[in-house]
This record gives sequence, C-alpha cells and structure tokens, in this order.
Amino acid sequence: MARRSRSARRSDTSAAKAVNASPFIQRRLPFYEVLDEEQIIKLEAQVDWLIQDVGIAFRDDSEALRIWKEAGANIDGDIVRAPADWIRALCAKAPSQFTQLARNPDKSVTIGGKNQVFAPIYGAPFVRDLSKGRRYGDMASFEQLVKLAYMHPNLHHTGLVICEPCDVPVSKRHLDMVLAHMTLSDKPHLGAITEMSRAQDSVAMAEILHGADVMEENCVIMGNVNTNSPLLVDKVVTEAIRVYCGRNQGIVVVPFILSGAMGPVSTAASVAQAMAEAMMCCAFSQIVRPGAPFVLGNFLSSMSLKSGAPTFGMPEPVISNYAIGQLARRAGLPLRCGGSLTASKIEDAQAAYESADSMHSTMLAGANYVLHAAGWLEGGLCTGYEKLIMDADRLGSYQKVLDQGLDCSDEALARDAYSEVAPGGHFLGSAHTMRNYKTAFYEPKLSDSENVESWEDLGSKDMRQRAYELWNSMLEHYEEPPMDDAKREELNAFGSKRK
Amino acid sequence: MARRSRSARRSDTSAAKAVNASPFIQRRLPFYEVLDEEQIIKLEAQVDWLIQDVGIAFRDDSEALRIWKEAGANIDGDIVRAPADWIRALCAKAPSQFTQLARNPDKSVTIGGKNQVFAPIYGAPFVRDLSKGRRYGDMASFEQLVKLAYMHPNLHHTGLVICEPCDVPVSKRHLDMVLAHMTLSDKPHLGAITEMSRAQDSVAMAEILHGADVMEENCVIMGNVNTNSPLLVDKVVTEAIRVYCGRNQGIVVVPFILSGAMGPVSTAASVAQAMAEAMMCCAFSQIVRPGAPFVLGNFLSSMSLKSGAPTFGMPEPVISNYAIGQLARRAGLPLRCGGSLTASKIEDAQAAYESADSMHSTMLAGANYVLHAAGWLEGGLCTGYEKLIMDADRLGSYQKVLDQGLDCSDEALARDAYSEVAPGGHFLGSAHTMRNYKTAFYEPKLSDSENVESWEDLGSKDMRQRAYELWNSMLEHYEEPPMDDAKREELNAFGSKRK
Repeated sequence: MARRSRSARRSDTSAAKAVNASPFIQRRLPFYEVLDEEQIIKLEAQVDWLIQDVGIAFRDDSEALRIWKEAGANIDGDIVRAPADWIRALCAKAPSQFTQLARNPDKSVTIGGKNQVFAPIYGAPFVRDLSKGRRYGDMASFEQLVKLAYMHPNLHHTGLVICEPCDVPVSKRHLDMVLAHMTLSDKPHLGAITEMSRAQDSVAMAEILHGADVMEENCVIMGNVNTNSPLLVDKVVTEAIRVYCGRNQGIVVVPFILSGAMGPVSTAASVAQAMAEAMMCCAFSQIVRPGAPFVLGNFLSSMSLKSGAPTFGMPEPVISNYAIGQLARRAGLPLRCGGSLTASKIEDAQAAYESADSMHSTMLAGANYVLHAAGWLEGGLCTGYEKLIMDADRLGSYQKVLDQGLDCSDEALARDAYSEVAPGGHFLGSAHTMRNYKTAFYEPKLSDSENVESWEDLGSKDMRQRAYELWNSMLEHYEEPPMDDAKREELNAFGSKRK
Repeated sequence: MARRSRSARRSDTSAAKAVNASPFIQRRLPFYEVLDEEQIIKLEAQVDWLIQDVGIAFRDDSEALRIWKEAGANIDGDIVRAPADWIRALCAKAPSQFTQLARNPDKSVTIGGKNQVFAPIYGAPFVRDLSKGRRYGDMASFEQLVKLAYMHPNLHHTGLVICEPCDVPVSKRHLDMVLAHMTLSDKPHLGAITEMSRAQDSVAMAEILHGADVMEENCVIMGNVNTNSPLLVDKVVTEAIRVYCGRNQGIVVVPFILSGAMGPVSTAASVAQAMAEAMMCCAFSQIVRPGAPFVLGNFLSSMSLKSGAPTFGMPEPVISNYAIGQLARRAGLPLRCGGSLTASKIEDAQAAYESADSMHSTMLAGANYVLHAAGWLEGGLCTGYEKLIMDADRLGSYQKVLDQGLDCSDEALARDAYSEVAPGGHFLGSAHTMRNYKTAFYEPKLSDSENVESWEDLGSKDMRQRAYELWNSMLEHYEEPPMDDAKREELNAFGSKRK
C-alpha cells in the first residue's frame, strides 16, 4: 500500500490486455421494488387497455397480419387487438432466462432472472477520440472498437453496430460487421436486422460458426429491433422476429420513446405504452415459435423544453428504469433497458454525471441485457473511444455491487482484528487486513487517487487523457482469439458469395 | 419546444437567482432494503458485541467518563462498555425526526424519517475555480461560497465550513464563519465544534438570532463531529455533545472510516463499527439530555491498493450507503451519510462518475442529512466553485426522483391522448402534452442537449466552463436576505467582544 512509483503506474496502465474473469453478472443484491400494489394495478390495467382496446398497428408485413389472424387476434385494418389474458399467456411461453452461447464457451452469457449482461453502444454513425476528433465511423474504427469491447473485462457481450462503418455500402455492411464480431472477438454478439435478408445472412453465419445442431438447441445469436412508437410495429420488427425466433434464436424488441413525442409527456404512460408494445411483439414471437428467447426492451428519454432534444440521465428515465424492472419481473421476461447515456458531445463531467445516474439505475433495476453500457455520446449519435473505456471502467464497480452485495460472513466481520488494534490505532498491519486486502477493493484503471502534487507531477491529466492512453495501449496488446481455419474460410466464402 | 436562440440561452443562464421552492425533500419513493434478515442479525450482533465486549474509549474528557459512570456504564480505564439493550434503549429516546428552524421559516428543514436535506461540502482547506486555480481558502471565497449555497434552489442547508477561511486566525474563525451563514443566508446551518468555547459561541449566537425562548423548544443549530475511529471518542465529540445537546440542540456524530485503516478491510465490519461508535455517542447524548436531536453519521471510504489513498464512488462505499440506511432506520435514528464524493482533483469525468455513484446511493439509501452533497474535490481537501454548482444541478434530479416517484394518476396515464394520436404519430401537440409539458421534465441548468453543430457554434464549452459562467452570474445577482438591524448589531457586538 506504498505510494506507487511512476514506472509502476506505467506498467500497470499498459497491462490492459485482461480477459473477462466473470462472463456475466449473477446478482446477489436484492431487487429494488419502487412500485406499490396500487401503482402496479394501474399500470398493468393501462397495458391491458392498450392491448385490448387501443390496439397496436402491425404494418407493411402481410405475413405478420396473417400470423396474428390465424392465431385468433382481432384485426381491424392493420390494428391488432387481443384479449390481454391471451397476450400474457403467450408471453409466459418465452423463457424467463436463457443462455446465449459464445464461440468461446467460457464467455457464454445467461440473460434473464438475476443475471445481468453489459454490451457497448449500438448504432452511432460518428466516432470521436481525443486525437482525431469527431468523424464518420468507418470499418477501421469499427474493428478497433470491437477489439476494445472484446478485450475489456467489464463488457460481457460485444453488441453489433458499435459504430456505423460508413465506408462500406449499406447492402454489404452487415456481412462485414458480423464477420468482425465473429473473428476479432470470442464473446457473444448480435446479428443484423435492417432487412429480412440481412437477418437471414446473420443467422446463416451463426450457423456456420456454431453448427446447425448446436443452433437448433441453443441461442447463439440475437437481433435487436425498435418498434415505431407510438403503437406501431413495422416489418423490420416482424421480419426480424420471424427470422431469429423462427430459428429458435433470440430477439430484443425495444420501444424507443421520447416522452412527449413518441409517447405521452408522462413517464407512467410511456412506461405502460412500452410494455404494451413489447408484450405484443413478445406474443407474436411466441406464436412464431413458442419458447424462443425474447428480451423485453425499454428505452425512454426525457426532453429539453428549450431545445426539444432528448435528455439523458434525468429523473424521468431514472424512475422509468426502476419501474420497468419491476414490471418486467412480474411479466417473467428478461429486460433490456438503460445504459450509460448522455446528451453531452464530449467526455466531460456532464457525460459522466448523466451516464452514471442512467447506469446506476439500470444496474439496480435488474436490466438483464444492457446495450449502450459503454461508449455512448451525443444522444447516441457518436461512439467515443475514451467514453467506451471510461464507462467500462465504471461497469466493474457496478458488477461488484451486484455480484457481492454485502458480505456478512464471519471472515468479513473480522472479530479477530479487534484483538490486535487499540482504540485510535489502525488496521493496516492486522492479520485480517493481510489476509483480505488484495481482494477487498475494486481497483479501477482510470480513477486517479493520487494527491494533487503527484497528479500535477504526472502532467495534470484528466480522466479523458488517461483513457486515451489506455485504449491505445490496449490496442497495442490486442491478440486475435484463435479460430479454426476451415470455419474462418467458410465464413469468408459466405460473405464473398453474398456480396 | 423550438430550438432556443443564443440570446435566449444567455438570459436563461443569468437568471440564476432562484430561491428554493421546496425547502427539503419529502420522500415518496420507497426505501431500498438491501439486507436480508440473516445479514441484519449478524450485523446487529456485531454492533452489540462491540458495545458490550470490546468497548469504546472516551478520552481526554473526565466529565464524559463521570457522566457515563453515574449513568451506570462499565468503565475500565477510559474504555466504556455497556449492555447493548441499554444503549439501544437510550438511542430510542432521540427523536426519529426533528425540525431545524431556519431564520426564514419557509426554509426550515425536517431531518429524519422520509425527509432528506442536502448541504454543501464541509472542511476543505483549499478552493479551486477555473480562473484562479487552486489556492488556500480565505474569507472572501468563504463568503462567495455561502452566497452560492444560499442562492442555489437544490441546497437546503448551508453547512458550515464550506471552505476553511485560512486568512482568519483559528481562534476567531468560527465567529466569522457562523456570522457569515447567519447574515448572508437565511437557510439553516451548523455551528462550530473544534473547541468547547467555539461550540458555546455558536450556540450563543444562535440564541441571539432565534431568541432564548424559541431555542429552548426548537433545534436552531447543530454541530457535526467525527469520532477518532477505531473505537475512540475524544473530547471534541463529548464536549460538542454536552454543549449542543445540553441546550437541546442537534448533534451529528460521524465515524470516518477508511476501510483497512480506521476499520477492518471489510465493508460489513466497518459499517458495524460505525454503528457501534455512533450509537454509543447517541446514548451519551441522551444521558446528557433525553430527547435532544441526534443524527447518526457514517462516512466510509475504500482505498487504492496502489497509493494507499482513499477512493470514492466505489462499490464498497456504495453498498455501505445502502446498508447503513437500512440499519439506521431500524435504530430509528436520522442518518447522515454519503455525498457527491470524489478523489479527482478537477471537475472532469472522474469527478462526475464518482460523485454521481456516491450520491445516487446516498439518495436511495434515504440519508436524511447529506453534508458534502455539492462542491467536494480531492477527497475533501478542496472546494470547487464549479463543482459546487455542477453537483447542485444534479441534486435537483435526485430531488425529483425522491419527491415524486412514479406518478400513476389518471392524468399521468393520459388515456385521452391516445384518442388524438394515430399509430406512428406523435404526441407533441396533444391536449395532454399541452396541459403537462411545462412541469413534465426536470430542466437542469448545466446539461447541454444541443446538437453538436449548435454546441460548437456556442464555443464547444464543456460543463465546467458553463458552470464557471453560471456561478459568476449568480454572484452578480446575489441579494442579501433582509435581517433586523438590531439583531445584526447584537451578533456583530458578540463577535467583537469574543475576539
């Protein structure tokens, strides 16, 4: 516990090629239940009313309407209405938790129940780092970001569109993105959804990687889709459900609701609307394939009255995270919500305050699959290299809170230490401290706890500058996880053929 | 909801002379109970063991030992041991909540129960701002910071040592500090504790301000003291208790435990030790004056294994906040814990991540009195002007989460809005939105939600720069709250006489 020297720090920072010790979080901390019985009854009655009386439009996919009709729903134009009891019964067919296999079995994740899985930002067209500034994402940055997500011990899953590789034509982009996740990383990831053929390509590539037999019995890939709130589900969603769930793979369906625009200007109404939209999609998925893995998503943002722009890390989405967590547990469905979200353009204090409040509530809410857990800037328009590493550093703290809760074992209560230490003394050298200090504290890589003089001696670097050094050092140490040559060739051949 | 113009933004930023609308938080959100029955039993047995078998030293105050002895405790040298049942029975005499009167009755605060009160940093020798950098605190900066705490709507209480006014001799400093809080602000505040005579001066000044009659029946001032952990209570604590509680005023007693140094290197043991130390002080206070207001404090920090320095916003203090909240509620005592804590030297992302995780857990833990809720830098060595304003901006978000929870009223469920909006449409112009948008969202002053182009046009300012502009603007608009001339003269005369 001596003051570390400069050289010690340097070697520590560069020793960043850690591999994930714990492939996902198995929560020991109790859930936080914010809603009382009366609130639950009112919210669930609202969900039922939206499903039964208001209805949800399923548009541009006649096959989806045919499936609903055959199953017995009421179809009025493209509005689908159904008895809420029936929808809830269909939702109950979806597993409350399931495992997504990674190609490295040590990195498979279980989604649902008390398990929580963190994945990076999804969908940003821009990237930003401290040396090159803000620019369109490209395949080179995409690959760097996938490598970082693979290397970081606090990210359990690599998502998919960690940035948009804008230099690759849209029609071919999904092939390169999926291939990069499959070859540069051995963690679980998502597949494409933007067109039916792209979803099919993703599932076909997963079949090559994992084998048809394994795939028949296991979830090896998932798609992540947004509804067109309010109350509209377009063919991107239904086709993705048909492709992924049709092969017994997972689907994450996420109503994205900016309160006041895509939902009423009220958190309770927006939460209920999100539940109704997602549950209808879940029911649809279970008609397509009973038992297919489904993750109920929620993405709720507040609004600046001055600019009309979405705001993040604010009290309304914080409370919505807590509420949706409780409602999803009651529905018995795995939940995706939250993330390290911010409206800030750079990795300043605003970005960190907003991300932390957003993610702290995401953590406690019990979100089972957390996309955007690291790297998000600018309301999701930009992936920050430094932000990715800074957020991920904090995720380790959340993992410890969730995994361990408060250890009250006899060893933790340390009665023997009190026989060694007099009133006003210190425990630094006690046998209990010697036995436990190495694992007692979470040791973040990017928080500086030096005194001001040492910090100034080292160049008065802020967290952003330290993060810049860390991700560069990590990339220098990147090693591609081994892969069977025949499999790699088959994946490449599939991509070439499809292009 | 149109994009605001530059001039609109400027006038908005300068319109910062808000006065607190809600003088403290009346929590509607349920408490978060993280400990199960088995953990509670083990922790409380540990507390009892420390009180009964290990004992707590009361040192350098023979009067304190005399009081303990007369009341019936076991005294062995300076170690006080007592039956835990008796100590718990004494603690039960302290009020579970009480009101501290402010000189402006609209700003009186209730501490305990479901009420939560935010106060700024306490005790930093240094100050820092963006233009003058880091320097020793002085009376000029002290007064500026008190003015800012007075003006900020999200701070309910002004604390006391918002920075150390190092240019005033220590023997006279308390008089100037208390006078500044009494005259520059009309919010509730603390008194001095470092020597018995300084505590007495503070109480005497409170008597001048509020009148002896009011003071006999009400809490109008409190002291805040630290024990000398582990298991040592010195005369600063016992004398402060004798002075404040002797006059039926409040005392906050806070074990400051750096796990591994002033307590075992275990969160559970450190939490139990803090409970034992604080409960013994509470029992002492109730022997001195049954029914005197007592706040059970807890300040637990983790440690960097590399530097040995305290770390903040880490998983161990986060979980300790949740646990101590539950234990304090079981003991029926108001709680002080947490704050917006960080080891960072500046207002960068590290400062904000750590402060937010620290404060989010403080908020949910139900901390009734939160010193250090704004302004803390460098492990408490430095008060940041920008940090004060940035943290306070975030406190408004916590207040909304706590005060409101999730409103599930019929108006919030907005059923009428769905008759106006088609699937895929928007709620921007619906009658429900028009009725509610003005109060729907928390509107922070310092978060920028502009798009990147607008933000760049405005100078690409980070939150720290915006905070610098805001506090300068606030000070330009400061107006001293009115005070009776005779009272002011009497306070000044008291100060002159005591100097």
